[in-house]
Amino acid sequence: MINIAVLGYGTIGSGVVEVLKLNGDSICKRAGDRINVKYVLDIRDFPGNPIMEILVHDVNIILNDPDVKIVVEVMGGTEPAYTYVKEALLRGKSVVTSNKELVAKYGAELIDIAKERNTNFLFEASVGGGIPIIRPLNQSLTADEIVEITGILNGTTNYILTKMAEEGIDFETALKNAQSLGYAERDPSADVEGYDSCRKIAILSSLAYGMQVDYEDIYTEGISKITDTDIKYAKALGARIKLFATSIREDDDSVYAMVAPVMIRANHPLYSVNDVFNGIFVRGNVIGDVMFYGSGAGKLPTASAVVADVVDCAKHFNRNIWTIWSSKKLELTDINKVKHRFFVRVLKNENSIDSLRELFGDIEIAPEVVENEIAFITKEIAEKEMKDKKEKLSGFLGSIRVRF
Amino acid sequence: MINIAVLGYGTIGSGVVEVLKLNGDSICKRAGDRINVKYVLDIRDFPGNPIMEILVHDVNIILNDPDVKIVVEVMGGTEPAYTYVKEALLRGKSVVTSNKELVAKYGAELIDIAKERNTNFLFEASVGGGIPIIRPLNQSLTADEIVEITGILNGTTNYILTKMAEEGIDFETALKNAQSLGYAERDPSADVEGYDSCRKIAILSSLAYGMQVDYEDIYTEGISKITDTDIKYAKALGARIKLFATSIREDDDSVYAMVAPVMIRANHPLYSVNDVFNGIFVRGNVIGDVMFYGSGAGKLPTASAVVADVVDCAKHFNRNIWTIWSSKKLELTDINKVKHRFFVRVLKNENSIDSLRELFGDIEIAPEVVENEIAFITKEIAEKEMKDKKEKLSGFLGSIRVRF
Repeated sequence: MINIAVLGYGTIGSGVVEVLKLNGDSICKRAGDRINVKYVLDIRDFPGNPIMEILVHDVNIILNDPDVKIVVEVMGGTEPAYTYVKEALLRGKSVVTSNKELVAKYGAELIDIAKERNTNFLFEASVGGGIPIIRPLNQSLTADEIVEITGILNGTTNYILTKMAEEGIDFETALKNAQSLGYAERDPSADVEGYDSCRKIAILSSLAYGMQVDYEDIYTEGISKITDTDIKYAKALGARIKLFATSIREDDDSVYAMVAPVMIRANHPLYSVNDVFNGIFVRGNVIGDVMFYGSGAGKLPTASAVVADVVDCAKHFNRNIWTIWSSKKLELTDINKVKHRFFVRVLKNENSIDSLRELFGDIEIAPEVVENEIAFITKEIAEKEMKDKKEKLSGFLGSIRVRF
Repeated sequence: MINIAVLGYGTIGSGVVEVLKLNGDSICKRAGDRINVKYVLDIRDFPGNPIMEILVHDVNIILNDPDVKIVVEVMGGTEPAYTYVKEALLRGKSVVTSNKELVAKYGAELIDIAKERNTNFLFEASVGGGIPIIRPLNQSLTADEIVEITGILNGTTNYILTKMAEEGIDFETALKNAQSLGYAERDPSADVEGYDSCRKIAILSSLAYGMQVDYEDIYTEGISKITDTDIKYAKALGARIKLFATSIREDDDSVYAMVAPVMIRANHPLYSVNDVFNGIFVRGNVIGDVMFYGSGAGKLPTASAVVADVVDCAKHFNRNIWTIWSSKKLELTDINKVKHRFFVRVLKNENSIDSLRELFGDIEIAPEVVENEIAFITKEIAEKEMKDKKEKLSGFLGSIRVRF
């Protein structure tokens, strides 16, 4: 029997307990032994819930118990999660987490401690919920130089954008729908402003390039400024708007990363990733393009990824699973130098196609969707150049990056 | 330095040598040591090619050399591949293969030998080319009971079906195009009759259920009877025809497996898998639906998967990576009992909608595509029932299973 402790009995924590019970027999077969939840840590009590029998309020009971071989951290946030996880690793326990804030901020350090102590720190559930992406990056794509990772990594924003497109509703209405269905938090900013996606692409980029990508360095723009009019233009252009979290290694080996809404067409592998689903596209220099798709969140899918990591820990006691993520910082390219095509909307009465051509050179005029507007797509220009031109534009209404 | 030998210097073998050269530095970082190709085995000579320096014609040079720690088998076919691989494992070498015939037929036995000798037998490249699917099934989806695996596992047939749909051409023309592009063999039967897909779904099913699924037991139907008229009907129904290789665990824990063309609509995750790409859809009882997409064949993508396995072997000397695939045979459900909806075409002058309703009960009439034909979709009926009804039908033209 392998004893584990679960820190946090929220949605994912209770999911972990449920999955271990539901699939106990097959998990036992794969782990080589039965997994037993010896403790659950939570500050709350759950009167009447059988979990009370193993509930503790003091983390030291877990940290001091040598029977506990694996600690599952599913509390979220950096503190006290970081302190608990670090202490568990220092005491030679394996740790599994679903906590993207923790991994993005302290991943390199915690991986190093696990290596030193010959134990494991695994975090498959921190990105893409149940979708296997961390392990494939770390163990399957090892023959490749990764040149691009682009993901739809946040289910809430993808749901909002999908509903805006399907039902023609505006951002606020779609957000309220998402909140009433429990897909969005009361304070939705972590999702809609792109912060969640930003931490996740920081984790994936660090793994892909083997160096520390600080999430604070990643240019991040959310979807709260996307309007129903933008969605109408996208449709008229045969496109969809998606919140992309992307990092790209350019020919000179420099890497840039950004989170921002983009317009894509049906030929992009992530075009069909709708509703609350996530999709992650990876391009390697020999494997070409691969894509991973599935539920990016949710109690059971996320718990599935957590438990799979527990199984991997159980199969690797006293054997570190090598993860390449050094604490050496990867300096990202200044975003101002990165080039994109842009979809741009301006007021018709303050601009003419000729004046726009004078400013932007060759442009592609979009079908008319709104009276008194001109919309167009620029050729590829640097972010800085776009900023400068925006300032020169009168009647500027908005712009969205284009990937076609 | 880790010495390996490559058996077979065909497309994949030369790709493996190329990838190890191209990405040598990053592979060294991930494997923990430099990978050196000490020998290449081939019956042919390659005059003028630098490979001649390490080319051998006698496998015993490789088998008898204790310096060779990893053997890469990329010859294809069951013999002499099986004899060489078995002997290499018995001598404690790790083996990596891309050979689906070998794995489908002897996988369980070779995995057992690797376990006994504390070495590894890895075969990521045998299914889905570069797409990581074996390792995710074996290591990532371990918390789940797999209830379905459905794949588009053969790039040649997917290319043919895509071209038939896009260009309105018939099967023979599309096949010739595929042959002229090198996507199809001169003798295309292994691809177009579904035998290739059959071996691949046998491998995936054995891994998912942990027992031996014999490919000979899998009902297999290819695409050579799909006509341009069928494709027109599919379009009229808002559907596409894809060659599915599928295995499904039903509520009573029985499993059926089949390879056959099916009609699917845009809501199926594999709908957008076109051209030579492969896609594999997996449904678990807790993770829900996940999908893996990428190049299912080709020199470099396949070599990428082979080399990733070599890296994994290098990280696991004297440590078997546990694979659940027992030699105990899984008895598949008699295909006659399996239920599907069927799309059926009959001659109009020998049938009426009333007579069809009498025979099939509730049916959905398809839009008219060809004069003097009636086409319809049945409700869900058992394969045996469909066979019996076909015999009673006069003017029967064809049928295709429907998944919507």
